[in-house]
Amino acid sequence: MEKDWVDLSKKELDKMQKIAKSAARLFNEKGYLETSMDDISNAAHLSKGGIYHYFSSKNEILFFISANFMDLLLDGLEEELKKIEDCFSKIKYFISRHIKFYSQYLSEAKTVIHEAHLLPREYFKVIAEKERQYHQIVSDILFHFFERKIEKDRLKAVAFILFGTCNGIYYWYNPRGSITPENLSEIIGDILCVGLTGYKQPKEDNARF
Amino acid sequence: MEKDWVDLSKKELDKMQKIAKSAARLFNEKGYLETSMDDISNAAHLSKGGIYHYFSSKNEILFFISANFMDLLLDGLEEELKKIEDCFSKIKYFISRHIKFYSQYLSEAKTVIHEAHLLPREYFKVIAEKERQYHQIVSDILFHFFERKIEKDRLKAVAFILFGTCNGIYYWYNPRGSITPENLSEIIGDILCVGLTGYKQPKEDNARF
Repeated sequence: MEKDWVDLSKKELDKMQKIAKSAARLFNEKGYLETSMDDISNAAHLSKGGIYHYFSSKNEILFFISANFMDLLLDGLEEELKKIEDCFSKIKYFISRHIKFYSQYLSEAKTVIHEAHLLPREYFKVIAEKERQYHQIVSDILFHFFERKIEKDRLKAVAFILFGTCNGIYYWYNPRGSITPENLSEIIGDILCVGLTGYKQPKEDNARF
Repeated sequence: MEKDWVDLSKKELDKMQKIAKSAARLFNEKGYLETSMDDISNAAHLSKGGIYHYFSSKNEILFFISANFMDLLLDGLEEELKKIEDCFSKIKYFISRHIKFYSQYLSEAKTVIHEAHLLPREYFKVIAEKERQYHQIVSDILFHFFERKIEKDRLKAVAFILFGTCNGIYYWYNPRGSITPENLSEIIGDILCVGLTGYKQPKEDNARF
């Protein structure tokens, strides 16, 4: 199912990214089902023919956005985590990396969460598998963090809570406001790792974590 | 704008609640815009005339669901919080109460989050005001918890993170699974209050909080 995007020239890929960006914004504003190829062509300042040169359908655009965003999250993650020794630091790193990509690509993140399930089955399976991989990486870190002493269902709940906390930001977060993405990942990382209690302490107090 | 529901008999209110429950489930499955009065009448096992006897439009049903759910969250909350002395216990109480209502009324909660903004302006204003009140109560507790030493924007972020964490449950939580609503509010309460670090400790260790 995966398209062979690697064979495309940089210029072609840039054009596809530009179309995908405009489409993701529209999907956020109007919803995937309510967005037409005409809307996308207007928003991307390209003729409909121009869009069809790169994507044969709206589904392909949604797939391109979703697959690219999941690849962005997955690429290099395991290697980066391997370089970090303790589980606690791995969790903090994961959270800050996740928030960084989410706040940088809010429209794409929201598209994956809210619209990817509308893809035809064989397309969606590819995205769901990438999501499963990403989720598994976090579950594995948490399992080690809890010294393998946590029940399976609780571990699942904790992993979902972690994602829910991070992903909830797109409802309200404005990356151009006074809280920078770095501030935000520090706040969320602190709350998830040491709780409101830990967040309340001056930094040197919770440096032990 | 607020309808005078208090004047209705218990039997009438029960019927409205039953219609609202069926409608909320449909809004979750199909989306508000895609749900017709016919769908609602089929799901509630009532004739369309029967539905129109209680609600003059689909908007009124959405308003009824949203206003009732927000009232459920707000009613008695301030009085209950006043009986609790320290801010930390107030936060824990708030979280556990919020999760209890959310897991008990998942369809209604999801309807308020995802569909209430589709209400006509004058209806939506009533819901938004109730949401503002609810949000303000949490912000006030957090402000005192941080001993009034937290910047306005950070306080706002922390309050949104708290809500995001709690509300994220409807993506994955199944109240009929092995994690009961009580387990879930304990897990979320622990993670938000003492973090993954605190959650990892045996209970007696973090009893000090």
